[in-house]
Amino acid sequence: MQLIGYQTSNQGTHTFFGYDPATGQPAGPAYTEATSAEVDQAVTLAQQAFDPYRRLSAAARADFLEAIAEEILALGDPLLQIARTETALPEARLTGERGRTVGQLRLFAELLREGSWVQARIDHALPDRVPAPKPDLRQMLLPIGPIAVFGASNFPLAFSVAGGDTVSALAAGCPVVFKAHPAHPGTCQLVGEAIVRAANRLSLPEGVFSMVHGVSTTPGMALVEHPAVKAVAFTGSFRGGKALFDAAARRPEPIPVYAEMGSTNPVFFLPDILKERGAGLAQAYIQSLTLGVGQFCTNPGVAVLPPDQEDFANETARLLAATKGGYLLTEGIRQAYLAGIGNLTEKAAVLGAGVTDDDRQVKPVVLETSVSAALEDDHLTEEVFGPSSVLLRAESTDDLYAFARSLGGHLTATVHGTEKDLREYADLLHILQTKVGRIVLNGFPTGVEVSHAMTHGGPYPSTTDARTTSVGTKAIERFVRPVTFQDFPDFLLPEALREANPLTIWRLVDGHMKQ
Amino acid sequence: MQLIGYQTSNQGTHTFFGYDPATGQPAGPAYTEATSAEVDQAVTLAQQAFDPYRRLSAAARADFLEAIAEEILALGDPLLQIARTETALPEARLTGERGRTVGQLRLFAELLREGSWVQARIDHALPDRVPAPKPDLRQMLLPIGPIAVFGASNFPLAFSVAGGDTVSALAAGCPVVFKAHPAHPGTCQLVGEAIVRAANRLSLPEGVFSMVHGVSTTPGMALVEHPAVKAVAFTGSFRGGKALFDAAARRPEPIPVYAEMGSTNPVFFLPDILKERGAGLAQAYIQSLTLGVGQFCTNPGVAVLPPDQEDFANETARLLAATKGGYLLTEGIRQAYLAGIGNLTEKAAVLGAGVTDDDRQVKPVVLETSVSAALEDDHLTEEVFGPSSVLLRAESTDDLYAFARSLGGHLTATVHGTEKDLREYADLLHILQTKVGRIVLNGFPTGVEVSHAMTHGGPYPSTTDARTTSVGTKAIERFVRPVTFQDFPDFLLPEALREANPLTIWRLVDGHMKQ
Repeated sequence: MQLIGYQTSNQGTHTFFGYDPATGQPAGPAYTEATSAEVDQAVTLAQQAFDPYRRLSAAARADFLEAIAEEILALGDPLLQIARTETALPEARLTGERGRTVGQLRLFAELLREGSWVQARIDHALPDRVPAPKPDLRQMLLPIGPIAVFGASNFPLAFSVAGGDTVSALAAGCPVVFKAHPAHPGTCQLVGEAIVRAANRLSLPEGVFSMVHGVSTTPGMALVEHPAVKAVAFTGSFRGGKALFDAAARRPEPIPVYAEMGSTNPVFFLPDILKERGAGLAQAYIQSLTLGVGQFCTNPGVAVLPPDQEDFANETARLLAATKGGYLLTEGIRQAYLAGIGNLTEKAAVLGAGVTDDDRQVKPVVLETSVSAALEDDHLTEEVFGPSSVLLRAESTDDLYAFARSLGGHLTATVHGTEKDLREYADLLHILQTKVGRIVLNGFPTGVEVSHAMTHGGPYPSTTDARTTSVGTKAIERFVRPVTFQDFPDFLLPEALREANPLTIWRLVDGHMKQ
Repeated sequence: MQLIGYQTSNQGTHTFFGYDPATGQPAGPAYTEATSAEVDQAVTLAQQAFDPYRRLSAAARADFLEAIAEEILALGDPLLQIARTETALPEARLTGERGRTVGQLRLFAELLREGSWVQARIDHALPDRVPAPKPDLRQMLLPIGPIAVFGASNFPLAFSVAGGDTVSALAAGCPVVFKAHPAHPGTCQLVGEAIVRAANRLSLPEGVFSMVHGVSTTPGMALVEHPAVKAVAFTGSFRGGKALFDAAARRPEPIPVYAEMGSTNPVFFLPDILKERGAGLAQAYIQSLTLGVGQFCTNPGVAVLPPDQEDFANETARLLAATKGGYLLTEGIRQAYLAGIGNLTEKAAVLGAGVTDDDRQVKPVVLETSVSAALEDDHLTEEVFGPSSVLLRAESTDDLYAFARSLGGHLTATVHGTEKDLREYADLLHILQTKVGRIVLNGFPTGVEVSHAMTHGGPYPSTTDARTTSVGTKAIERFVRPVTFQDFPDFLLPEALREANPLTIWRLVDGHMKQ
């Protein structure tokens, strides 16, 4: 059922079902793919809502985000149950993910109430300057319009209907039209209805949020191509993200696409730390690569090992043999995983593999090959979405550096090293600064904190826009642009720019930060 | 002569000349278009320079910008003379523009020395948090790599070789390969050599700046398509900017294009202020639209007049009849201006026109038509680069609002009104917030202050990227991306992120702004 403003709609004829990964069977009732007319209706309402919504106070938008959090919690156990059926993710993980989702809403509400995120800048006039007077200039970030948000399959709550993209767009003052992920339509439906209830409760303009279903690419493309849509946010595959990017660039009015398309998140193990605690690292590596059945965007899909580390390799193989696999989110992901592993085994040796409870589960797999082989054949280090990783054996320090320099854009890179290692390999850290959005020392990349200093993004092809993050408060900057008000009388200025600073926000005044 | 790192090169066979707009004759010596090999050499050097250059301290980069300013001033009168020959702009304007260019370099040097522009954010670890510890996260903006910068024709100094794009890229820590504008190659050559001298004097890595000449689109396209180029900055025509944008989006690795492509910068005159000082406004309007022979990106190309304003129209026509035109920058611009005015006169009446000294000069022209005609035919309000404007007669307030709502993206919009007017037309100001980068009250859009709060940008089609500005200190944000350092020991962090804040910059620490 599409949620179009405060109405529901089901005009289409193309139906589909959610999917239970544990049984491989359809789950829940039939859902109807949105028609182009329904997409148009949703975007048109969003466009109409934009003006009244963006004029609301930041506090009113914060109330909205908090109301969404309340409505999601009020859904109670049925939300977790349906998400569990549609994803086969364990309950503890889903409970944690709900907590993350609600926490994210509250963090953005806090950001709005604090208010400094608008980056207000004031340059006072110099009427007597020669040869020409200097005008009074005041700049702040303002929302850009309706945003199309595409839900990810792998986080049915935190990167879905009320996930970081939706929340940061709504926080910025932009209405959202959400494209539900067809792998968990029932979860989407419940959360979508919760957002609509929150909007309704606060009498927000109709169309501030809508949600459309779809299993083909048609409704999503209709969204991206709609002239009133002003930006796109997406988390998913490279193929999907790149198709949206291309469509957006071809529009009569090109628009930004913030597609987070995953990466292999290379992990570098350095010699000294392997001596110190190689066995513990092997265990942590396997834990990270099997977290959520390996379905994290930040899964460590590639690791680099210095020469002569048979102990680490053997320990990895030994531990892996006792490691359980799990159900992948969709049949498509499962088939792609099996095919990907199949292709890799033609080129690389299997170092070790885990176990499964039944035939529908997939095994975690670690393959091994040399850095030089990986440098010659890019396919060896391409992402295989799921619980797998390729261990690359470096034959020398030069090998390790050559691999680091050859990297394309990734979300993260990780280095494990003692202080001695890190001093010795300081150049590695410098190289990685130009390759990724986040560098992790002595940890693992899975686990993406929602906070102010998080960057979940990185150079192409990990995303289509490295200037940004899709997790953390800085994500709000994707949906705004600077606007300057020249020589405005105080009463006509937005509150953030008024001389007396009624919002008590931090502002750059004549080049000095002031509150 | 191409400037490739610290060498010069002239391998090509395709030569061209600068142009003297006052005589219509070639000016200065022959220049050789860069070959693809020369472009590749320049970008390869820039890529090699990137690592050492970005690792320099901010103070060292500030020294570089200040040295460029000194070297430009040291060029003395010959720079102004050659610029005058190649542009026919008056000496006072060129002296002013040189001041602006030097001031811009110094402002960015100041920004670097102050240092807070990197937007450092620190979220401290919470090792005891349950269920999972919170890592230490530190984020800052870091440079992205070599930038291709295209000079504009209309500001031979301030938007050319050492213009805002080059300066903000160099300030960010990105090497620049500059594509000289073929209309003023001699001016480019002198300024390019000044930058090379400054780099050499400070022993900066070779390739931090290179400059290639070209009159065809080939060298520019080779630049944009070079895999080592990470972003493009451009000021010029819609056609030129859009072609670069399309080429950049088609690359195997798409890159951002910051193209400022001009606009018609609508001016709204409101009824009460016209009563109060209509004659003065007519004069200021003509002054603004003929500034620099109308060759400003922020030229007021369209103005909207309320009903029954014959006095204003008559005064505009009367003043215009005594207003001198001038020489346009290139024969291409001149022909396009004459053709554009020719096309307009088939659809709109000529309200008035100015005078010229000789046949090579063009007259300023104001045309008039109704808002309703403009709403029906977009061609009436398309940019005609040069000293022309179209005065649109509104038949009602609804007309005025309909026109404001119909606007595409513009760099600026301007409203003239008394306090009474502005209160009455407050909705107009709200509409304009969604249409432009800068709203000017009771002034004119020409004259773009270089300061912290300036936005010189706006929604498509005025630019290809509304998230940014090409003038003012915020322009530096175009050439950086956020990078997060997770659990780094203090000694491995960039200075901006070290716990003790050795640079004494403003940082967002656990959500609080601190210095």
